[in-house]
Amino acid sequence: MSTLKGACIIGQSGGPTSVINASAYGAIITALEDENITNVYGACNGIRGVLDDNLIDLSQEDRDELALLKYTPSSALGSCRYKLKNPDVDDSDYKRILEVFKKHDVRYFFYNGGNDSMDTCNKISKYCLSHGYECRVMGIPKTIDNDLAGTDHCPGFPSAAKYIATSVMEVYCDARVYDTGMITIIEIMGRNAGWLAASSALAGYKGYGADLIYLPEVDFDLDSFVEKVVKLYNENGKVIVCVSEGIHDKDGKYISEYGSDLASQVDSFGHAQMGGLASYLAGVVKEKTGAKVRGIELSLLQRCAAHCASNTDIEESFTSGATAVKCAVAGETDKMVGFERSYDEAGNYVCKTKLFELSDVANAEKKVPLEWINETHDGLTKDFIDYCLPLVAGETGMVKEDGLPRFAKLKKVKV
Amino acid sequence: MSTLKGACIIGQSGGPTSVINASAYGAIITALEDENITNVYGACNGIRGVLDDNLIDLSQEDRDELALLKYTPSSALGSCRYKLKNPDVDDSDYKRILEVFKKHDVRYFFYNGGNDSMDTCNKISKYCLSHGYECRVMGIPKTIDNDLAGTDHCPGFPSAAKYIATSVMEVYCDARVYDTGMITIIEIMGRNAGWLAASSALAGYKGYGADLIYLPEVDFDLDSFVEKVVKLYNENGKVIVCVSEGIHDKDGKYISEYGSDLASQVDSFGHAQMGGLASYLAGVVKEKTGAKVRGIELSLLQRCAAHCASNTDIEESFTSGATAVKCAVAGETDKMVGFERSYDEAGNYVCKTKLFELSDVANAEKKVPLEWINETHDGLTKDFIDYCLPLVAGETGMVKEDGLPRFAKLKKVKV
Repeated sequence: MSTLKGACIIGQSGGPTSVINASAYGAIITALEDENITNVYGACNGIRGVLDDNLIDLSQEDRDELALLKYTPSSALGSCRYKLKNPDVDDSDYKRILEVFKKHDVRYFFYNGGNDSMDTCNKISKYCLSHGYECRVMGIPKTIDNDLAGTDHCPGFPSAAKYIATSVMEVYCDARVYDTGMITIIEIMGRNAGWLAASSALAGYKGYGADLIYLPEVDFDLDSFVEKVVKLYNENGKVIVCVSEGIHDKDGKYISEYGSDLASQVDSFGHAQMGGLASYLAGVVKEKTGAKVRGIELSLLQRCAAHCASNTDIEESFTSGATAVKCAVAGETDKMVGFERSYDEAGNYVCKTKLFELSDVANAEKKVPLEWINETHDGLTKDFIDYCLPLVAGETGMVKEDGLPRFAKLKKVKV
Repeated sequence: MSTLKGACIIGQSGGPTSVINASAYGAIITALEDENITNVYGACNGIRGVLDDNLIDLSQEDRDELALLKYTPSSALGSCRYKLKNPDVDDSDYKRILEVFKKHDVRYFFYNGGNDSMDTCNKISKYCLSHGYECRVMGIPKTIDNDLAGTDHCPGFPSAAKYIATSVMEVYCDARVYDTGMITIIEIMGRNAGWLAASSALAGYKGYGADLIYLPEVDFDLDSFVEKVVKLYNENGKVIVCVSEGIHDKDGKYISEYGSDLASQVDSFGHAQMGGLASYLAGVVKEKTGAKVRGIELSLLQRCAAHCASNTDIEESFTSGATAVKCAVAGETDKMVGFERSYDEAGNYVCKTKLFELSDVANAEKKVPLEWINETHDGLTKDFIDYCLPLVAGETGMVKEDGLPRFAKLKKVKV
């Protein structure tokens, strides 16, 4: 491949994670040290920053602050949820992107995100190719949902999984403290793929787990759920249930909508009473058992709890960003960096980077394999544990100041 | 004081914390090593374990497992919320307790809990005294609510404060990632005393805090709240609010009841729709602004997140348990161990134990001083930061196995 000199743009997109900045740092520091890359720009709020020519010069940042990105949650460059149109229908965004690329002699574009971001990446790559503008485009994966196709797993998922499993273990201890009955329902993110709720099975593997785990990969039957909870409650007095926010009935209707149907009725009283899936199911179960029931929604905490990040995830995220830059400089384009898993002779988990065609990844969605869900559809098999356990290993090196996180502070000097 | 030989009972009571087991470990290990204490018993589920003669022999436990109690959340011996009657009205429980004490020659009783537990402690102590049974009774403090009288602060509060401040900092990063508007309302425990919600001010001190913090120490005015949120939203597009669950209006009505009034109406549709304060306020604010609003309830996580415990808290909790035993053996009784704060010549925080009369502590309640709440009643002053910051210093030594917590596993051999 020929040598290509020019500037690069790094952007972040989609929902934040605990480690997306570790990926960005891997890309930024590698780009800053590469002689072929003349300038290292950050796009503010993802592709919107390119469209608005709203770029920052990352070479102006203090290197020590940049290093703290490894342990700083959320997207330091800002994110967006902007979806590019089909260029055959409306190519105005693409024309603008090409204009900005040309203005700054951008020859490398690194985009750090999930499914939608890989779609953005893919469209830009194809547009540049078809318009004869040489720009090497690489996707850097990120999603707590773990649903990107091809790659063994996605940066961001292991840290969320570690936080979820740890929290479920701690809630397990808490929920068993009294000699009175208690039912706890924990709502976990995951609209279509149940990887995150599945990760609560790690808590069970350690002996502090949920009695029932429900994923959106299989239909949820409310009556069967209630029956199981009542039986467990009568037997043990304690029940813990973990549910994906995306569980749905056999007609495809989200169970959370059962609750919001009620909520919309409440609107007529003058206030929007918002309540999630956990509180809806808690209400149903309370009615049937009379038990003390607590609904817990892990909410944003599960995707931003950098203080409980997996070091495996942090290092792999860094590597994915660094690899994207190295491979692009070496001539690759139109690819997403992903992971391939193997085991060494001692049986230890080994993770290697592997490149995937952007067009294969864009908009595809990887769900939890049905054979990893148990026969009664309320738990995970040992195969899932074996898959997930190595990912949560290792503790964050987060820097603390006064016992609290010291996050990266960027100057964000505008280009 | 005279030497007193005999068995001891250690019990835990009230809501669990991340470090109540560190206190228990301090008491257990000190008692096991003391020659005056002939047997070290644990009461299962607090005073109920005494009433039921349901005791375990803690000398049978593996010492390495006991040591893990320092990092194991919730009450390892089990807890209860049993309130002893006034002995002048009904002394049957006290007679039973004395019977069990005599049966096992119990001469030391250590009770690890909050306000109600100190009341229990106090009543038992007074009953033993008035019935000529020599038993030294010591209270070991515990409460995330930080509302015990006398002591500078309570074991359990610093770890909850650290978790809350850390989580608010992380949510702050997450909530600012998009260039679109967002209002986040975080509900924090604390029915009458606002110490926990106040601790979110540490996040603000670090630059990643809430715009508004509301405590139950002052009346909450819904209209003024909405006005402030709307103004901040229009100015900045982002608003974070932290509220104590116990905020109430000028008539003393809990704001959370505004929501449950609605919820009870929903009951007539056939389901109990449970929704907390955060979701109620989120609904109100959403209606006024049309903004994206997220209500987050930190729920049980704030009191059991041992993975984010303060090492200062862990060590002080251990010391409080150990001190209770040492002082009792030395002749003290009828006291609660508490803390007194000072600063060394370099200005560093120093914490010393101090004994308080149980009768002064029982049922008293310490609230956040009004002079630490700002003039507009929506934030804390620097005095509060100075008080709270040293408490959250230091990281837990929690043992991990496969990247997940390794909690103490007790055999719990019955006496």
